[in-house]
Amino acid sequence: MINKLIENIKKTNAPIVVGLDPMLSYVPEHVQKAAFAEYGETLEGAAEAIWQFNKAIVDATYDLIPAVKPQVAMYEQFGVPGMAAYEKTVAYCQEKGLVVIGDIKRGDIGSTSEAYAIGHLGQVQIGSKKYSGFHEDFATVNPYLGSDGVKPFLKVCKEEKKGIFILVKTSNPSSGEFQDQEINGRPLYELVGEKVAEWGEEVMGDSYSYVGAVVGATYPEMGKVLRKVMPKSFILVPGYGAQGGQGKDLVHFFNEDGLGAIVNSSRGIIAAYRQEKYAQFGAENYADASRQAVLDMVADIDGALKAR
Amino acid sequence: MINKLIENIKKTNAPIVVGLDPMLSYVPEHVQKAAFAEYGETLEGAAEAIWQFNKAIVDATYDLIPAVKPQVAMYEQFGVPGMAAYEKTVAYCQEKGLVVIGDIKRGDIGSTSEAYAIGHLGQVQIGSKKYSGFHEDFATVNPYLGSDGVKPFLKVCKEEKKGIFILVKTSNPSSGEFQDQEINGRPLYELVGEKVAEWGEEVMGDSYSYVGAVVGATYPEMGKVLRKVMPKSFILVPGYGAQGGQGKDLVHFFNEDGLGAIVNSSRGIIAAYRQEKYAQFGAENYADASRQAVLDMVADIDGALKAR
Repeated sequence: MINKLIENIKKTNAPIVVGLDPMLSYVPEHVQKAAFAEYGETLEGAAEAIWQFNKAIVDATYDLIPAVKPQVAMYEQFGVPGMAAYEKTVAYCQEKGLVVIGDIKRGDIGSTSEAYAIGHLGQVQIGSKKYSGFHEDFATVNPYLGSDGVKPFLKVCKEEKKGIFILVKTSNPSSGEFQDQEINGRPLYELVGEKVAEWGEEVMGDSYSYVGAVVGATYPEMGKVLRKVMPKSFILVPGYGAQGGQGKDLVHFFNEDGLGAIVNSSRGIIAAYRQEKYAQFGAENYADASRQAVLDMVADIDGALKAR
Repeated sequence: MINKLIENIKKTNAPIVVGLDPMLSYVPEHVQKAAFAEYGETLEGAAEAIWQFNKAIVDATYDLIPAVKPQVAMYEQFGVPGMAAYEKTVAYCQEKGLVVIGDIKRGDIGSTSEAYAIGHLGQVQIGSKKYSGFHEDFATVNPYLGSDGVKPFLKVCKEEKKGIFILVKTSNPSSGEFQDQEINGRPLYELVGEKVAEWGEEVMGDSYSYVGAVVGATYPEMGKVLRKVMPKSFILVPGYGAQGGQGKDLVHFFNEDGLGAIVNSSRGIIAAYRQEKYAQFGAENYADASRQAVLDMVADIDGALKAR
């Protein structure tokens, strides 16, 4: 799947991923109204609203982008109907040829981690049959539990040719509380980065590993170091746009081949119509605003990469 | 909810929690067969099988125990129908008066962490109405992202009088890879433990905080230290039984008041009928085997506490 991700990036010339993290407050009123008219102000109604919202944004942007990253928490908050909307979103994006990175940040141990890996990337055996529960192409994984938590994911990735992105240095202000703590003179995130490189060696695609890393756009200097620590790992970079990261901060996350990083924007794309910059589209045309925001983001990153 | 947990522990005189982590392989064939007869060998069939399995175990043990801890990964592997079985299990256990600790190990940042907190412990606003998606009483939380990931949970815990258990030192063999790394001469897990104590001060119940910690039974010496670092935090202790922890290892996790810890057993209880010790019950009477395993576990811990 890392090979397909790279192929999609080359085809679109856009090393970006659209974060499908639909807060209900992002969904324009006319979309909410239509959903509530059908299902009432219920979990099912909310799930329908975010699904319709997603669908229109995917329809308006899929030809420009290689991948999407639905944030499962935004669906999980709507209970079981929300999880159904998540699965429907994953399936729809795959139909459109997009690579789907499930931002699930799961992590547990042994058979439990294997259950997560199976549920999201693999197939579960039921009697004589096999099923793929949420069938994303990649998943994000939390490393706090160590190799016992990661290895079951590696096993499933190998079997299914899928991939993971392991949290190394997250984009948030307090990420340093634990991640930056110095261990023998080097920060914890570097130690995690080294393990990512090590785990990644076991499951190599054509030029990059099935095992990538998450490193926030808000920490470009750390990105520079981590790029070297994990040369064969794709870096999923959150924190662009709404969280403060800019195109010029991102160049350090890429390798000389122009690959090696994929930059996420969520709010900045899916709720673009609420920004002054895209206000002329109006709430009715929110998906067109998202398309324009994608074009602007691609140009920003392309410009920064060309200027380096 | 911490007050209710303590009340339940005092009532049952059993500082234990039954881990409802149903692998399909634990579910006796007659239960699987009945479920597949109704729903086929499908995700729905598997979800029905684990729900019926859970229900019988809860019916056979609820008068002896204060709490259950369903491991969401075991449900998530069966996709959306699995998540529905999870929710149904949570609701049923609550009807029986049990405190439900959702072992979800979630953790993200800002509004995303808030979405998890709302989905599992709080209420989501949909138009003029509010809904509780998975409505557990406690949830486990991964601390790797720092305060930004934890504070949204604290906010929801305060509003809803619910609680969390933060991963501090997990029970698995490789937990030390990152958690034991020394920072200024002290291991990372101690630093996390200090933050747990600090976060916990904001949300106090009558005698213990809404914020607890997860510390594995397999590391009793570390438990001893952490007990002192977080005096007002309940410790959820996995790793008893199948993972190798024994009654005598557990005394250090408790405070002088005989409270402060709750010991989990999953496989050891729910799959007791597969152990030689309980084989006489037979697969047909798996729930009775679970009841006996609960009685034995309570006696083991009680004996160890009395002997200290």
